[in-house]
Amino acid sequence: MNPVLPLLRRASSRQPQILGRAVPRRSISTLPATVAGLLEFKPDQPVPDVKIDGFVRSVRAQKRLHFVALGDGSSLEPLQAVVPPDQAEGLTTGAAVRLHGSWIPSPGRGQSHELQVERAIVLGPSDAETFPIQKKYQTPEFLRTLPHLRPRIPLNATVLRFRSEVIASLTRFFAGRHFVQTHTPIFTSSDCEGTGEVFHVSTDRAALPSPATSKTQKSFFRRPVYTTVSAQLHLEALAQALGNVWTLSPTFRAEQSDTPRHLSEFYMLEAEMCFVDGLDPVLDLVEDMLRHVCTELAESRVRRELAARAGERTADLAPAEQVAQRWEGILQTSWPRITYTEAIEVLRLSDTPFSHSPIWGEDLHTEHEKYIATKVGNGNSPVFVTDYPRDIKAFYMRASAEGSDGSGPPVTTVACFDLLVPDFCEIAGGSMREHRLEKLLDAMRARGIDTGKSSPDTAPDPSQAAENNLDWYVDLRRWGCPPHGGFGLGFDRLICYLAGVPTVHDTAAFPRWYGRCDC
Amino acid sequence: MNPVLPLLRRASSRQPQILGRAVPRRSISTLPATVAGLLEFKPDQPVPDVKIDGFVRSVRAQKRLHFVALGDGSSLEPLQAVVPPDQAEGLTTGAAVRLHGSWIPSPGRGQSHELQVERAIVLGPSDAETFPIQKKYQTPEFLRTLPHLRPRIPLNATVLRFRSEVIASLTRFFAGRHFVQTHTPIFTSSDCEGTGEVFHVSTDRAALPSPATSKTQKSFFRRPVYTTVSAQLHLEALAQALGNVWTLSPTFRAEQSDTPRHLSEFYMLEAEMCFVDGLDPVLDLVEDMLRHVCTELAESRVRRELAARAGERTADLAPAEQVAQRWEGILQTSWPRITYTEAIEVLRLSDTPFSHSPIWGEDLHTEHEKYIATKVGNGNSPVFVTDYPRDIKAFYMRASAEGSDGSGPPVTTVACFDLLVPDFCEIAGGSMREHRLEKLLDAMRARGIDTGKSSPDTAPDPSQAAENNLDWYVDLRRWGCPPHGGFGLGFDRLICYLAGVPTVHDTAAFPRWYGRCDC
Repeated sequence: MNPVLPLLRRASSRQPQILGRAVPRRSISTLPATVAGLLEFKPDQPVPDVKIDGFVRSVRAQKRLHFVALGDGSSLEPLQAVVPPDQAEGLTTGAAVRLHGSWIPSPGRGQSHELQVERAIVLGPSDAETFPIQKKYQTPEFLRTLPHLRPRIPLNATVLRFRSEVIASLTRFFAGRHFVQTHTPIFTSSDCEGTGEVFHVSTDRAALPSPATSKTQKSFFRRPVYTTVSAQLHLEALAQALGNVWTLSPTFRAEQSDTPRHLSEFYMLEAEMCFVDGLDPVLDLVEDMLRHVCTELAESRVRRELAARAGERTADLAPAEQVAQRWEGILQTSWPRITYTEAIEVLRLSDTPFSHSPIWGEDLHTEHEKYIATKVGNGNSPVFVTDYPRDIKAFYMRASAEGSDGSGPPVTTVACFDLLVPDFCEIAGGSMREHRLEKLLDAMRARGIDTGKSSPDTAPDPSQAAENNLDWYVDLRRWGCPPHGGFGLGFDRLICYLAGVPTVHDTAAFPRWYGRCDC
Repeated sequence: MNPVLPLLRRASSRQPQILGRAVPRRSISTLPATVAGLLEFKPDQPVPDVKIDGFVRSVRAQKRLHFVALGDGSSLEPLQAVVPPDQAEGLTTGAAVRLHGSWIPSPGRGQSHELQVERAIVLGPSDAETFPIQKKYQTPEFLRTLPHLRPRIPLNATVLRFRSEVIASLTRFFAGRHFVQTHTPIFTSSDCEGTGEVFHVSTDRAALPSPATSKTQKSFFRRPVYTTVSAQLHLEALAQALGNVWTLSPTFRAEQSDTPRHLSEFYMLEAEMCFVDGLDPVLDLVEDMLRHVCTELAESRVRRELAARAGERTADLAPAEQVAQRWEGILQTSWPRITYTEAIEVLRLSDTPFSHSPIWGEDLHTEHEKYIATKVGNGNSPVFVTDYPRDIKAFYMRASAEGSDGSGPPVTTVACFDLLVPDFCEIAGGSMREHRLEKLLDAMRARGIDTGKSSPDTAPDPSQAAENNLDWYVDLRRWGCPPHGGFGLGFDRLICYLAGVPTVHDTAAFPRWYGRCDC
């Protein structure tokens, strides 16, 4: 006989307990179990036997009753719980509690219903005196010093919930179009942008450098390795095998900047389309994608909450009407597309006194981007600016196509784009990639990028590719590289733009930037 | 007048081109555009004007016709294209091509339909002589030296497509249960496991250490920073604000091991449940989640392909019947749950001659886990083993609850679990977290973990938390910490298990392990 059987106990025979009392496993209640659910539940008559878990946001003690505002992360608005004094002990700001009672039409103003509490249990006490999160106004700068507690602020929680819904909506969008979601690597030996602003990775303890450890350092991966600045090169390799691909992945830049638009660690949404003949399908994808997200979420609870801004700290958000305009602009059916050359013309014809003169061949300054986004986009629609000068763009970008009648832009430009939005400027950029071996090698040589063993005169030996960190990228062009293109979108910036949050420091749960990596 | 207007050109006025000829923008064809779509399209009569893009997997040249096997990443099975010799130039193995022709019932055997090609265009040529991916058998070890080309192998592409579908299914599962998807940080100053097997991050170039640069190193974040080993601690902070949360995020271990179960960079699926009173709801979540994924994908194309294994290299996969059993086991309605103490008893009663005697207080060896997974799970169902001895588990785990009648396990165990599956042993683990301040501090002191400024006698000063990397974690217990628990699941291992791939090196697109970070 199998010795196991007598000992075997299946899940269903286990009786879970709540506070020492046995309860049926997976008891199914049809009553809402979240604050958001209860707030939408508006019965005419009192409903008994309601149980709700949450955190005390504030308490107002009166002689005969305590009024508790309860939140659980599911809604910006709190639930009002009315607690008799004999149950109110320990119901302090910040405490985690379980409330039992009846859900009744509220006799008071300010809420349609409230919880008449019969029994309150403190599951996690809170010393309200020392609790750093105060009901009064606290600056975003101060709150950033408390990343582990900051999400307890209703508005911060709402932004994180919005971020989650945008991720789910994007996942639906790409799955519906049969794009393959990929996990591109974080550690890499290739520097996509070549700017050198990378974080290096080693098994050394950075705080304890010594000649002895530097050997270990080099040897773990047998070469210098750093955290990725972009998934693009790897996505290109995957697109040549899987077709259209995308990723939402952490990326890193060691810039010593402290601006509302930059983090050292940030999320990039990147997609690569295979077998596309020009930039337009890529722009269509970006447009369709953002329109899909805004269409799906336009009527969602979290979007309504962000628009209504019931709660504190609204001064730290962009004006509600401005954010509403951003959504409207994205929902418009077709966004303007102009070339860089046309953009320069628009700027030169403008009466606006720019600090920097618009000059063909130089990058657009922020003031220029703002003007283009506002004027060309009619104040709310995003604007694609395409075909920038080759010399200010990355080596891998393909030359702009000449029109068949020679009327197209000169080939001193590349088939690329920036997506500009009002108030926030660039949130996405992309290009066609040079897919022809010889032209890619030419572009690399022209910029002094080592083409290593990639000379077409010598037979490629991929097992030796380790010595040159772009060999493998050049390799992709040797065997079956069709025209392809893609884009990267700063995900934290997108959340800022759509939620009305002015800085990426407040859309990431645990932001990292120059000097800050707090927990 | 607005100077912009005359220059403004909207998207719809742009005429995209294919090979120099103007085509309507976003021309809508009702014909399938992928190989997978065409293979499922089985008309009785020939259908003209079909266009398909893809990569040549192989060519069989006969006198009057060339037979091309075409793939595009959408299906394991290729499409047969029959090409007249005057269109066959450049149709070499690996080439990226565009084929125009008619989709006709196939007169040959081996496929129901085939593409009768009228025009073939080579979009990306391939030198078949040097193409490292050969139709003949190539070992997984060799192919791992070519991560940038390996996804072009149909079976590898299929595994990556499967991975994508599992991600989408998980996203649907958690969204449906209102779990908030979060982006937990990659860079951190806290070591969750305390093993020290971490990668350090610096702005230094690891290959060029010098006294001068070591200062920069320390100063970018003003403290030692490394890549995360687990999102758990950060998820706990978020759960106290948002309720139930989850993440699918890269994690890192600097282990110098080369096993089928370990990578230096790997994906962890982690979830944390707030306001749960015991381990059972956490186990229920794991069970429901995996059953959801397997239910959704059981009849999917990618799952059928992996089960049928039409294609090469099947010897590198687990036997099809074995993989089918794994799916069946997960779809069973209730998985066995036994305690560690019971598992030790099962092992001691067994006749199997183990290399290591099962001893209470020691960790289970692989041979023990295999025995438990097979015997207790009846050969296919996953098995939860719960309540391991405290001394072999992490400091943050809560003590096992004593039964109300004193019949429960002794409190020398903690409320934790490992999920064991046949053939692959542990794929997930989790626990209740110690949510009470004093007990957490006791556990930390007992293990010699610095509790820093976290002494309950001194007022907490979060702005000083930077000096001790677990201060913030202790802080969570000061203000409203309810009972909570969660789990982590090795995502690469899950893909291995469900796809039948024997090693995590082959489920990650660009695997990194000791000595390997190739591109």
